[in-house]
Amino acid sequence: MTAQTPNPIWIYDTTLRDGSQREGLSLSIEDKLRIARQLDQLGIPFIEGGWPGANPKDVQFFWRLKEEPLTQAEIVAFCSTRRPHKTAAEDPMLQAILAAGTHWVTIFGKSWDLHVTEGLGTTLDENLEMIRDTIEYLRSQGRRVIYDAEHWFDGYKNNPDYALKTLKTAMDAGAEWLVFCDTNGGTLPHEIGQIVRDVIERLELNPENQGRAGFEPTLSPTTEPDGLNPPLQTRHGASLHSPRLGIHTHNDSDTAVANALMSVVEGVCMVQGTMNGYGERCGNANLCSLIPNLQLKLGYHCMQEEQLATLTQVSRSISEIVNLAPDDHAAFVGRSAFAHKGGIHVSAVERNPLTYEHIPPQQVGNQRRIVISDQSGLSNVLAKAKSFGHELHKQDAACRQILGRLKELENEGYQFEAAEASFDLLMRDALGQKQQHFELKGFQVHSDMLQGIDTPYSNAMATIKVTVNGEDILEVAEGNGPVSALDAALRKALVRFYPEIGTFYLTDYKVRILDGAAGTSAKTRVLVESSNGKQRWTTVGVSANILEASYQAVVEGIEYGLLLQSAVKTAVEQNV
Amino acid sequence: MTAQTPNPIWIYDTTLRDGSQREGLSLSIEDKLRIARQLDQLGIPFIEGGWPGANPKDVQFFWRLKEEPLTQAEIVAFCSTRRPHKTAAEDPMLQAILAAGTHWVTIFGKSWDLHVTEGLGTTLDENLEMIRDTIEYLRSQGRRVIYDAEHWFDGYKNNPDYALKTLKTAMDAGAEWLVFCDTNGGTLPHEIGQIVRDVIERLELNPENQGRAGFEPTLSPTTEPDGLNPPLQTRHGASLHSPRLGIHTHNDSDTAVANALMSVVEGVCMVQGTMNGYGERCGNANLCSLIPNLQLKLGYHCMQEEQLATLTQVSRSISEIVNLAPDDHAAFVGRSAFAHKGGIHVSAVERNPLTYEHIPPQQVGNQRRIVISDQSGLSNVLAKAKSFGHELHKQDAACRQILGRLKELENEGYQFEAAEASFDLLMRDALGQKQQHFELKGFQVHSDMLQGIDTPYSNAMATIKVTVNGEDILEVAEGNGPVSALDAALRKALVRFYPEIGTFYLTDYKVRILDGAAGTSAKTRVLVESSNGKQRWTTVGVSANILEASYQAVVEGIEYGLLLQSAVKTAVEQNV
Repeated sequence: MTAQTPNPIWIYDTTLRDGSQREGLSLSIEDKLRIARQLDQLGIPFIEGGWPGANPKDVQFFWRLKEEPLTQAEIVAFCSTRRPHKTAAEDPMLQAILAAGTHWVTIFGKSWDLHVTEGLGTTLDENLEMIRDTIEYLRSQGRRVIYDAEHWFDGYKNNPDYALKTLKTAMDAGAEWLVFCDTNGGTLPHEIGQIVRDVIERLELNPENQGRAGFEPTLSPTTEPDGLNPPLQTRHGASLHSPRLGIHTHNDSDTAVANALMSVVEGVCMVQGTMNGYGERCGNANLCSLIPNLQLKLGYHCMQEEQLATLTQVSRSISEIVNLAPDDHAAFVGRSAFAHKGGIHVSAVERNPLTYEHIPPQQVGNQRRIVISDQSGLSNVLAKAKSFGHELHKQDAACRQILGRLKELENEGYQFEAAEASFDLLMRDALGQKQQHFELKGFQVHSDMLQGIDTPYSNAMATIKVTVNGEDILEVAEGNGPVSALDAALRKALVRFYPEIGTFYLTDYKVRILDGAAGTSAKTRVLVESSNGKQRWTTVGVSANILEASYQAVVEGIEYGLLLQSAVKTAVEQNV
Repeated sequence: MTAQTPNPIWIYDTTLRDGSQREGLSLSIEDKLRIARQLDQLGIPFIEGGWPGANPKDVQFFWRLKEEPLTQAEIVAFCSTRRPHKTAAEDPMLQAILAAGTHWVTIFGKSWDLHVTEGLGTTLDENLEMIRDTIEYLRSQGRRVIYDAEHWFDGYKNNPDYALKTLKTAMDAGAEWLVFCDTNGGTLPHEIGQIVRDVIERLELNPENQGRAGFEPTLSPTTEPDGLNPPLQTRHGASLHSPRLGIHTHNDSDTAVANALMSVVEGVCMVQGTMNGYGERCGNANLCSLIPNLQLKLGYHCMQEEQLATLTQVSRSISEIVNLAPDDHAAFVGRSAFAHKGGIHVSAVERNPLTYEHIPPQQVGNQRRIVISDQSGLSNVLAKAKSFGHELHKQDAACRQILGRLKELENEGYQFEAAEASFDLLMRDALGQKQQHFELKGFQVHSDMLQGIDTPYSNAMATIKVTVNGEDILEVAEGNGPVSALDAALRKALVRFYPEIGTFYLTDYKVRILDGAAGTSAKTRVLVESSNGKQRWTTVGVSANILEASYQAVVEGIEYGLLLQSAVKTAVEQNV
């Protein structure tokens, strides 16, 4: 390995394998391929694709990747050690992993004596033999091996000598990476640091060199497999010949990211995790937090700066693919991660961002957001206007008008924190820039429920009257409930004039009762999130009548979608 | 302080102040009071209630708590140091905090020189004076003071000498606690540990004794305020006389919990955080993770075992109050935190849970969930039945029937966690104990909205048909919206037969969209809380039609009220 500054950390993504264990997350082969390509573009050097021996879908996934390989990343197949008392060569699971045709294979084995005797029901010696035989066999077939030491920390605490034996066996058999797995996620950061330090000492590795430029472990380097896979040149120009250490943590103690960082501080140089922290139970270590912490704060090199600047986008795009709402409060990549409230604070942030932001948001492709709330002053409105591309000055009449209208609406229960599209519409209105696409004349909603017959009967129907370009349009539609009926009727009335409405769909619908103590007479606030497949925006409506509140939010959602569309058209026309 | 085993950690909750800074979270005074009472029951010793100088709502909150005080917890008022170049005695903000009438006050001050000169626009000396004067003034008024050192870690890194001066000033002025705040949330665990260690050394505190039994700091103890507030006897029997250290972390680096833990390992003995990690940007340190880590893993005493065993319930109940969906993947308290998949794994877990679970879930009031298995459910039903006073045995047919119905309803989106009245009705139904007070035949709801006239016209009307004692009743009523119209029609139809319905009223009405991604066609879950002036109970309804879901919950609310009333009657009759 050539000398380099800064020191590299190899990121190992297991979103497609461990991440997909998350309850409620299921991935098609197409989903997996899309995610793999995004991770490849992001600059992740190792992508664990799945367990081909355990899952037929994963077999196909590896085949598809052979037809259209990734550009930079190494795709890794995952498997356990062979079964007890059989040879590795005759284990069908290992045949499946060879058939996946990857250069790299991750093998997980037992570190905890209790799991060997109770879980596998075999002897401690046989477990060592399983580790040795499996790795040697894969090496003989030209594969490069990462060894995941399952339940490492619990195993080491219970029987350190045996746990170390399993690692030494894996090293001697030719594993190039040894990965400490906190499988139950129960270990705390200070313990992780201590144990990693101990193990490096007891394995006689030089902690100074672990993962650093110029590192040569005291162990004999594994022989290079003959021809099948030439030495991997990573994107960092380094070849990975010699056993190094990795860390794989789970978030059951809410410390997965910290646990990985503490290991890196002690000398570990591969970090395993998942995008958005997806994973079984409480999830895996979140790479969207780890990568910026490692690169921007600890000064390790994980990927190119330009790649890091796409992290937020990749995070959100993956959450779209797996169909889970992104966590707005996620560190670094969340929508609220760099949101600021309150007047004095906001002006201070604009003067010197680093006094209120731990990193510049653009380094991870995120952005500062000035939140509009009832504590807002003029400076907030100005900052917000700027972020939407409106040129506003403190002296402008529109500025006071916006602030006045804002306070008035907030008093009525509107909230623009989460409904930025509605706030943009409000600003455009004050600036005389709001285009009226249609005008509502009225609606009627009718909902029936009949019981006491064989199957309860239920029906919801909405009639709507709107004016578009001077023409009165009357439409009617049914729905699951009154709100969806109203939504359907409105779209039906407008799509003839604005066919792009056909591409809009609702991605989220939220209802909040304001002052719930007023019971069913309470005011209702509705938030609607809409999408056109490329952008997402949120609008708000408030009324004591939930149908009216929903209607307001849906209407503004459509208006804003049309506005975005016309902005794109204008941009295209200007280019021509 | 008397010797104690295990060593105590004082938990300081700031859900009501810092937590409410979370975007999209807004709390009514009633919400705040309900949360405070839950935290009190949970055994949190310090509850920060708000900033009475900055927010009129918070003033009222403190008044309300004076009328009906908490049972064990100390409620704390929060405020900044006084303004530059004025005396503390003439600062209206400090008058407001005195008016709150709490024993304890938390004062935050600037530690970072840059924030003093750029943010406050004053001199470094004046900042020290502001800290000294504010704390001394509050001490002179009999208040006990916690000092939050804002931006501590950034400040210490940039100018350690000045940062230390601010702390020493606060100590000398009489602050009993010094709290290190990582305000921007950018510090990593290994740095936090290092800095806390340094500071303890430089302040000449004995790290062995910080927060430990027998601790007496080398600093002169502050004089006890005269009479206004007797020395606080905490629930742990310890009085808090002498300056100790605390930690307040934010999750911008996804390490807030770890940062707090690393500080505790170095000797800090107050941990500040919020329930469910609510807070600005990426949130505060999550107490639902911290408390179990501290007590179950590190062996510190935070609360009674029985209180810890209610943690999951309190976490979920607070998420209901603030109307945010609970995070299923949250450490310790999430629905998926102890979920197990797969056959072999499951039997291994049942043989020896600790091989696959980092703690026994019942210690935090959570439960193991075996995905696709009835086994865990049965014992749960038995436990629940018992808590409602129903004698049920594993062998009873009703038991399986309840479980079956429960699974069926949960699949449809019902959730009985917060709707125990509905669950009780379900059990009574299976046990043949549910009395049918009325039968719904059907309803029709009609809602109109007309614009384009002088005043927009809006109307909601509901017609309802029910059978009571064999008599068909047809009623019609209007309301603010369709739900209140429906509620009014139902009450109108029933009150003649059950006059006690006249004493029932709705105390809360909540709507949650399940699978928001389905937009306005998504299923809706409605929770209705009802009261008869003495008791309160919550019921649930689920449907794609929000009117139907609301109707179900309202009907069950009335049924349960009647049931409670007849139970009272029976009890009274038996007494006679």
